[in-house]
Amino acid sequence: MTTPTFTVSELASLLGAEAVVSDRPIEGIGTLQSATETQLSFLHNARYQQQLSASRAGAILVRAEHRDAVASVALVVADPYIAYARATALFCEQQDAGVSSISPAADISASAQLGENVTIGANAVIGDDVSIGAGVTIGANSVIGCGCVVGENTRIAANVTLYNRVRVGASCFIHSGAVIGADGFGFADDGGRWLKIHQLGSVRIGDRVEVGAGTTIDRGALDDTVIGDGVILDNQIQIGHNVNIGDNTAIVACSAIAGSTRIGKNCTIAGGVGIAGHLTIADGTHITAMTMVSKSILQPGVFSSGTVMEPHQQWKRNAVRFRHLDEMSRRIKHLEKTVKQQNTEGQP
Amino acid sequence: MTTPTFTVSELASLLGAEAVVSDRPIEGIGTLQSATETQLSFLHNARYQQQLSASRAGAILVRAEHRDAVASVALVVADPYIAYARATALFCEQQDAGVSSISPAADISASAQLGENVTIGANAVIGDDVSIGAGVTIGANSVIGCGCVVGENTRIAANVTLYNRVRVGASCFIHSGAVIGADGFGFADDGGRWLKIHQLGSVRIGDRVEVGAGTTIDRGALDDTVIGDGVILDNQIQIGHNVNIGDNTAIVACSAIAGSTRIGKNCTIAGGVGIAGHLTIADGTHITAMTMVSKSILQPGVFSSGTVMEPHQQWKRNAVRFRHLDEMSRRIKHLEKTVKQQNTEGQP
Amino acid sequence: MTTPTFTVSELASLLGAEAVVSDRPIEGIGTLQSATETQLSFLHNARYQQQLSASRAGAILVRAEHRDAVASVALVVADPYIAYARATALFCEQQDAGVSSISPAADISASAQLGENVTIGANAVIGDDVSIGAGVTIGANSVIGCGCVVGENTRIAANVTLYNRVRVGASCFIHSGAVIGADGFGFADDGGRWLKIHQLGSVRIGDRVEVGAGTTIDRGALDDTVIGDGVILDNQIQIGHNVNIGDNTAIVACSAIAGSTRIGKNCTIAGGVGIAGHLTIADGTHITAMTMVSKSILQPGVFSSGTVMEPHQQWKRNAVRFRHLDEMSRRIKHLEKTVKQQNTEGQP
Repeated sequence: MTTPTFTVSELASLLGAEAVVSDRPIEGIGTLQSATETQLSFLHNARYQQQLSASRAGAILVRAEHRDAVASVALVVADPYIAYARATALFCEQQDAGVSSISPAADISASAQLGENVTIGANAVIGDDVSIGAGVTIGANSVIGCGCVVGENTRIAANVTLYNRVRVGASCFIHSGAVIGADGFGFADDGGRWLKIHQLGSVRIGDRVEVGAGTTIDRGALDDTVIGDGVILDNQIQIGHNVNIGDNTAIVACSAIAGSTRIGKNCTIAGGVGIAGHLTIADGTHITAMTMVSKSILQPGVFSSGTVMEPHQQWKRNAVRFRHLDEMSRRIKHLEKTVKQQNTEGQP
Repeated sequence: MTTPTFTVSELASLLGAEAVVSDRPIEGIGTLQSATETQLSFLHNARYQQQLSASRAGAILVRAEHRDAVASVALVVADPYIAYARATALFCEQQDAGVSSISPAADISASAQLGENVTIGANAVIGDDVSIGAGVTIGANSVIGCGCVVGENTRIAANVTLYNRVRVGASCFIHSGAVIGADGFGFADDGGRWLKIHQLGSVRIGDRVEVGAGTTIDRGALDDTVIGDGVILDNQIQIGHNVNIGDNTAIVACSAIAGSTRIGKNCTIAGGVGIAGHLTIADGTHITAMTMVSKSILQPGVFSSGTVMEPHQQWKRNAVRFRHLDEMSRRIKHLEKTVKQQNTEGQP
Repeated sequence: MTTPTFTVSELASLLGAEAVVSDRPIEGIGTLQSATETQLSFLHNARYQQQLSASRAGAILVRAEHRDAVASVALVVADPYIAYARATALFCEQQDAGVSSISPAADISASAQLGENVTIGANAVIGDDVSIGAGVTIGANSVIGCGCVVGENTRIAANVTLYNRVRVGASCFIHSGAVIGADGFGFADDGGRWLKIHQLGSVRIGDRVEVGAGTTIDRGALDDTVIGDGVILDNQIQIGHNVNIGDNTAIVACSAIAGSTRIGKNCTIAGGVGIAGHLTIADGTHITAMTMVSKSILQPGVFSSGTVMEPHQQWKRNAVRFRHLDEMSRRIKHLEKTVKQQNTEGQP
């Protein structure tokens, strides 16, 4: 692992900023407040504009309008946040390119096929007939089940589990503790006992998908569970069997999607959301945190449920009234009727 | 791993259908819409009845009343869904019967006792004094702590953790990422610092229990945490210390049961439910998704909490009013009193 | 692993009770109802006072006022619950002190530094430049990434993952399935595609921290995610990037804290709570189960949200009305106006 150094001039070129001449070495990235003279920073939110002049950062990514407020070197770009994201790729720990490193302690089936420049950590287990693309990294103690296919340049962290026949696309990143392809929760009620429905489908994951730590994606009952290209899943998400998630949808931590639900493209689903099974969610839908979705959403929009936090004693009094809400509604209706009648009777 | 083929006649016999004569080979199962001529299908929900005639499936499990609508071969059974569940067991990937396979890369204590036909994956770790029944499978990289007992024909997938002294019954299936027997969350407040209460009990799991991926079942403080026979637990469920779950209860993903709660038999608890500690839930209780259970349920029924999803702006207006619900209730009461008085005064 | 035996006299001395003379051997701890004559018990909650006389426990920890109700030997202490917590440390399974045990099947980098009396389980993987303090235990199949630092006497259970450069303090306990230092969920919207923001910070965990099974703590984007001293985290908690948790705060299972939120000291956060990002929660705040926190809490108190469980059909009627709450409020206001007008008109 090495962390590279760039000159400010090189960074300007690599990040698509207006050219500058500066040999100052930059070794990392910091916030406007914390960055040192050998770090890059950026101004994304105009709210922090007043921090520009005081920042000690060696160079700062800004839009043209903020160029003059920078004390050190301004790197002028169209979108400083995108440029910052690109910069993180330059400064993150990288394996030396073109080096293949397969731990002698890995347990790799003779029938597995490995592409070029594959890295496999200690005690990783690669099953029969697995196909691993070029440039793939598989972390220590991960288990790749028989017949799995892993696309080029995908990174699988330590302690990941892929059950048999799971297919993962190219340039994905699967984090530790993730379990992909475990059985969907399918059981038939056989006179009070649960009869297991073995899950014969599998999981297909597109390209450029991120799967967070501890996230579980179940295999399909007959057909496959499908995750589209560019989908990003945070930690501890649960995806039920035969769910289908459209391209570039983002789901935040601790959300759960029940079986056979289809989620469109470019949706954003906040944390702790629950979506019932067999629903359809339109492309471009946004769901706020901890919402319970029990009906399909056929037109995109922003959707919510729940109540808002308040002091406990006050909440308790209100929550008790919630259980009388239907009665309250009837009483209002009755009052309206009575008052209207009185008004009419009061007329001359 | 092999996937077997059956003739339609054989399937009729194996699944308890009315006898048919057909040598057509069947190699798998599909939905009515997707099944090919070498696949079995089934009609469970009468809603899909019109798909029967168009289905290309080589044979279809149906009730007698739908026999004539089947274009290919009807396999007439009393309950097509149960027959389908049984068929999935025929077509799932199976290890060759009677073959014991213990990876040389597994780390097995000399004091562990293994039954016949046990399969243990690479890098699995089996602690001292463990007892493993006949026909058990333990996946790669799983850890079975000292003194654990695993009953016959139980399957433990890859990357599972059993802490010391956990007892698992026969014919269970424990999925990857599950952690059984970690410490219950017991701490005493020692003047502002938390003093750990070491958890001296363990976990006992009955027969035919399914434990989903990433599910955690904590060991008891003094006595054991107990999971009854035939209980099915989906993914990412949290079971606190000293919880007791009755036979054949089903719990869906991401639910959590706090310490010392007793859940009856044959309950169904949907996804994302939270149940507080030290409660009793009656046999046969049903709890809907994302419900917060903070009181015991002594008579079975269906129980719910929460609010229903709506467009965000509308939700916001309503959620603000929730915080005035108690006040609204008082105002209605006051109005009723005033209006009643007016009515009385209005009398001649 | 050995479980020690003590005489009642020894226990009195070890637990700070009034001295007693009794050679009775005590081998474990039980509840008042289940304890045998060779077990210790305790009376914490006066509600169980009537069980004292019937208990078969060999010795019972009580406050002075309950001394005479004990049939066997009363061990009089100021706080029986604290004394019980201390007793659990005496009776839990212990590794033999002063014995270093490093599995030959562990995979330890030559550049890792190990303190004295370190225990490392089979197939654990210890990366380059890791520093492990004296008395540390690392469980089987755990992975400690490059550059990690683990403080003295910390226990890391089996199947734990620490990503690169994570720092864990002394006397911590990290349970199985925990993942510390995975990437925070940071992505920039690059014209409809998600551009990954590589997470360059790490995670710093204080001393005496407990991390439950399956809990995930993400590394920071630029700065570190920080967990204070004495923090206790239950199972399946999600801590987002750059979160800061103050000393001695307790968080119960399945709660989630979104990125950059600062939680004060000595807070208690119950199970299933969700806290949005970029908030500040005051020292000493208490949040009840399944509450959604979407605003900062600047003054401590007890806070809640949600509705209370009720029979499903009744809930359904009330939940429907919730969506008309704003309208109901307006109708009440209108009624009040009308009735007030009638009252005024009715005046002579």
